[in-house]
Amino acid sequence: MLKLKGQYKEEFGEEYTPAAADAIKDRKDATTVATEKTKKAGHKKSKVEKSEPEIATPTNAPEVKKQTKLGLDVKKQENVADWYTQNFFDKEIKKLGVRNCYFPMFVSQNALEKEKKHIADFAPEVAWVTRAGSSELSEPIAIRPTSETVMYPSYAKWVQSHRDLPIRLNQWCNVVRWEFKHPTPFLRTREFLWQEGHTAFQTAAEAEEEVFTILDLYAKVYTDLLAIPVTKGRKSEKEKFAGGDFTTTVEAFVPVNGRGIQGATSHHLGQNFSKMFNISFEDPETGKRSFAWQNSWGMTTRTIGAMIMIHGDDSGLVLPPRVAPLQVIVIPVGITAQMDEETKKRITVKAEEIAKNLKNSDIRAESDLRDNYSPGWKFNHWELKGVPIRLEIGPMDLAKSQVTVVIRFNRQKLAIPIDSVSPRCSELLEKIHNDMYSSMEKIRDERRKITAEWGKFKELLEQKCSILAPFCGLPECEDAIKKDSSSEEGADPGAPGMGAKTLCIPLKQVCL
Amino acid sequence: MLKLKGQYKEEFGEEYTPAAADAIKDRKDATTVATEKTKKAGHKKSKVEKSEPEIATPTNAPEVKKQTKLGLDVKKQENVADWYTQNFFDKEIKKLGVRNCYFPMFVSQNALEKEKKHIADFAPEVAWVTRAGSSELSEPIAIRPTSETVMYPSYAKWVQSHRDLPIRLNQWCNVVRWEFKHPTPFLRTREFLWQEGHTAFQTAAEAEEEVFTILDLYAKVYTDLLAIPVTKGRKSEKEKFAGGDFTTTVEAFVPVNGRGIQGATSHHLGQNFSKMFNISFEDPETGKRSFAWQNSWGMTTRTIGAMIMIHGDDSGLVLPPRVAPLQVIVIPVGITAQMDEETKKRITVKAEEIAKNLKNSDIRAESDLRDNYSPGWKFNHWELKGVPIRLEIGPMDLAKSQVTVVIRFNRQKLAIPIDSVSPRCSELLEKIHNDMYSSMEKIRDERRKITAEWGKFKELLEQKCSILAPFCGLPECEDAIKKDSSSEEGADPGAPGMGAKTLCIPLKQVCL
Repeated sequence: MLKLKGQYKEEFGEEYTPAAADAIKDRKDATTVATEKTKKAGHKKSKVEKSEPEIATPTNAPEVKKQTKLGLDVKKQENVADWYTQNFFDKEIKKLGVRNCYFPMFVSQNALEKEKKHIADFAPEVAWVTRAGSSELSEPIAIRPTSETVMYPSYAKWVQSHRDLPIRLNQWCNVVRWEFKHPTPFLRTREFLWQEGHTAFQTAAEAEEEVFTILDLYAKVYTDLLAIPVTKGRKSEKEKFAGGDFTTTVEAFVPVNGRGIQGATSHHLGQNFSKMFNISFEDPETGKRSFAWQNSWGMTTRTIGAMIMIHGDDSGLVLPPRVAPLQVIVIPVGITAQMDEETKKRITVKAEEIAKNLKNSDIRAESDLRDNYSPGWKFNHWELKGVPIRLEIGPMDLAKSQVTVVIRFNRQKLAIPIDSVSPRCSELLEKIHNDMYSSMEKIRDERRKITAEWGKFKELLEQKCSILAPFCGLPECEDAIKKDSSSEEGADPGAPGMGAKTLCIPLKQVCL
Repeated sequence: MLKLKGQYKEEFGEEYTPAAADAIKDRKDATTVATEKTKKAGHKKSKVEKSEPEIATPTNAPEVKKQTKLGLDVKKQENVADWYTQNFFDKEIKKLGVRNCYFPMFVSQNALEKEKKHIADFAPEVAWVTRAGSSELSEPIAIRPTSETVMYPSYAKWVQSHRDLPIRLNQWCNVVRWEFKHPTPFLRTREFLWQEGHTAFQTAAEAEEEVFTILDLYAKVYTDLLAIPVTKGRKSEKEKFAGGDFTTTVEAFVPVNGRGIQGATSHHLGQNFSKMFNISFEDPETGKRSFAWQNSWGMTTRTIGAMIMIHGDDSGLVLPPRVAPLQVIVIPVGITAQMDEETKKRITVKAEEIAKNLKNSDIRAESDLRDNYSPGWKFNHWELKGVPIRLEIGPMDLAKSQVTVVIRFNRQKLAIPIDSVSPRCSELLEKIHNDMYSSMEKIRDERRKITAEWGKFKELLEQKCSILAPFCGLPECEDAIKKDSSSEEGADPGAPGMGAKTLCIPLKQVCL
């Protein structure tokens, strides 16, 4: 590491400073596996790190493949109504002392344009309201693409003394970024929902510490709730948040198209915004005017899209058990027209009873007793909706005092004794989470390759791998790499042919 | 009642139909006091019911009167971050089987204009996005003023059979109504937060029942959480929701300006929208195509504004204990420069300990131990923020093993034994809720007058009373009444001089 830093200094004439990365390099990293990569100054063409753009091709997502009358829209209302991970994250940040707030959706042109780098990056995506009723507005008003410029004028008013710091606020809201290409449900939509944290501190150290605390929480959302392995890292200069000092990110891998996907980002804004918006105070030690150190951090409904893309299969959604709104569906089977009424009744009563017992054990369960649909139709229906466990109960099961269990994600079938359904389902749900995580981790690791050769780099990219490669970090090089790694023929947007895109500089580095 | 209906029929040639009001007239109404009013056909000039516009004069609100450096904005972030009543209401509607969802903020012109009465009413207030980045959009896109027209095209796709009904969805979101006059924080803002429930049923009876179930929940939010008495009723023809069959409402009274304020509304939409958007199914009994019966219902951040206006005083906010984010503030007092260090320490340690014990008893409490502010400054600070109970602990209190309690809303001062602070505070918080409610109820009842004489009506209006008066219900009469009850000179907007406005036709009627 030190050697690499030395080389860096030799070539660029300045210290390599991974910002706060040093401060946290010993931090325990329980949530991401060892995803090391070298950071090394070297030849331009070979200076590339992990690749693949973060947009997924919608045609690869199971959502689109298997569209029925009750397609994506209905799944939206039935399955992803309360955002899965909101409760967890909201609780955790409250423990840190962050409070929720709400600021307006509209931002004046003047405020929006105050931080120049920021607006330069967002300007092409800003939606403008120019008319109300039949009246033209005297000046157009923007819809927030993010709220730094909405909130910081207030922060400037609130901060008079160092005693008014820190300010740690968060809001759950909608934002608009008018993307012109390839809207993809949950992943890239013009309006999306997110939480955005905005904090201001007296010192850089406090702010930088928070950036990584929040990043850890984001990683946990993926690993502990969504059963998705992620790599924690810093964004390249080109990909970092416009107007900030540095951006940290959690990046996941999508096996189906071999791409990375940005999971959530936590930015250190330094004093860039506080200088523009005059968020300042008298330093209690020096007596001089000092600017606040700020962060912003956000996680969006994209978490849901990433979960659908990464776990879904050709039969529909596959929901990780901890976030599945419905964890177990109980379906009576083997009921025939010839069957006597009493047996029929015993089966449906038992199905209902099992669902009730599960609910009493705090498992989210339902029984599907509709008599106008066949068991096969129901299997298909609940598979499509990704319910982790299906329990079947029929005359044969009743005779053997058992229920048949089918696990959605790997289609394993097993039988469990009818009198231990609840505890066994609890265990199974935990096991499913771990197995889903491990299976994704295995695929991710198999498809992660280390290389420092340009020829090999392009080859691996075609093979839908994620690549760890050395990279100088300069935006010009990044553009050149993307261009040179694209295939000649006009590839599908989002396909590997569109060229490599950096994901992150992993916090944990490996040596070549 | 029957006699009155007879008179109505005689005069207008049709039955007086208070929609579902009959079905619920025997419903237990524990939350509103007996707020009876006659519904009677009579002479035009005297056909007026309750009066006063629902907008408050901002200058009367304590918020504006007492503005400091840390004015309204800071109070927003510090005190009303998570909307007070969201948890309660969300839990209750989930019990009813309503699920949360999220639909887009943008609505196409085409969808918005489908229901003609609806758009006629909202058109002047719709904000239009016409530009994204530097590109003009090919057609302008509206921001939802409410989501009937956003959601119902999806409902039309989802409803194929009567088995797809009911649909009961709710979303917590922002909406925009571009009001051109008198924006007032929380009460009348161009963007506001709300929940909007949208439901579709097979039968009118099911839908109508829900309208009143939801209305009861809205009443509870006011009476049981905000300590505000409300009157449940129906809106007049002129004031009902545009495009719906009838609108029910809870109306509160604001003593400071003598006006009513609309608390929340629950609408029965009949089949108006289902016909326009083709939300239809085959009736299982008749085999004919049938349209769904729909409701929509909403409660906004105005609840917070109503609470501020109704309970606030010249020293700032007065928060009802059940929704106060901070219920008890503990402040050390009587610490002087001459005091020995040990006594100082004993006092602050005790203050901290009391706050900790309160928190352990699930009371939202903090101690304010800042040593750069005087006790007087702190009293003022926490009064402004409306904290229901202040506990003072000083050397005298310690000596007597007591703490001094000051109740924010009525400024009562008492002493309680130091070893029973937590249980006594629990009791006190309950008592404060009840006392705040009763005191508002008393004022409301004293200022509610019944009259059928036009002369008296105008006089009572000037005296900032709410008036129960007979009214034919015709929109033309309502306009005439408003005009004729205005004073000649241009009154302040929102002042009584601007004329009477109907609030509601109370569900519980009295005879003249």
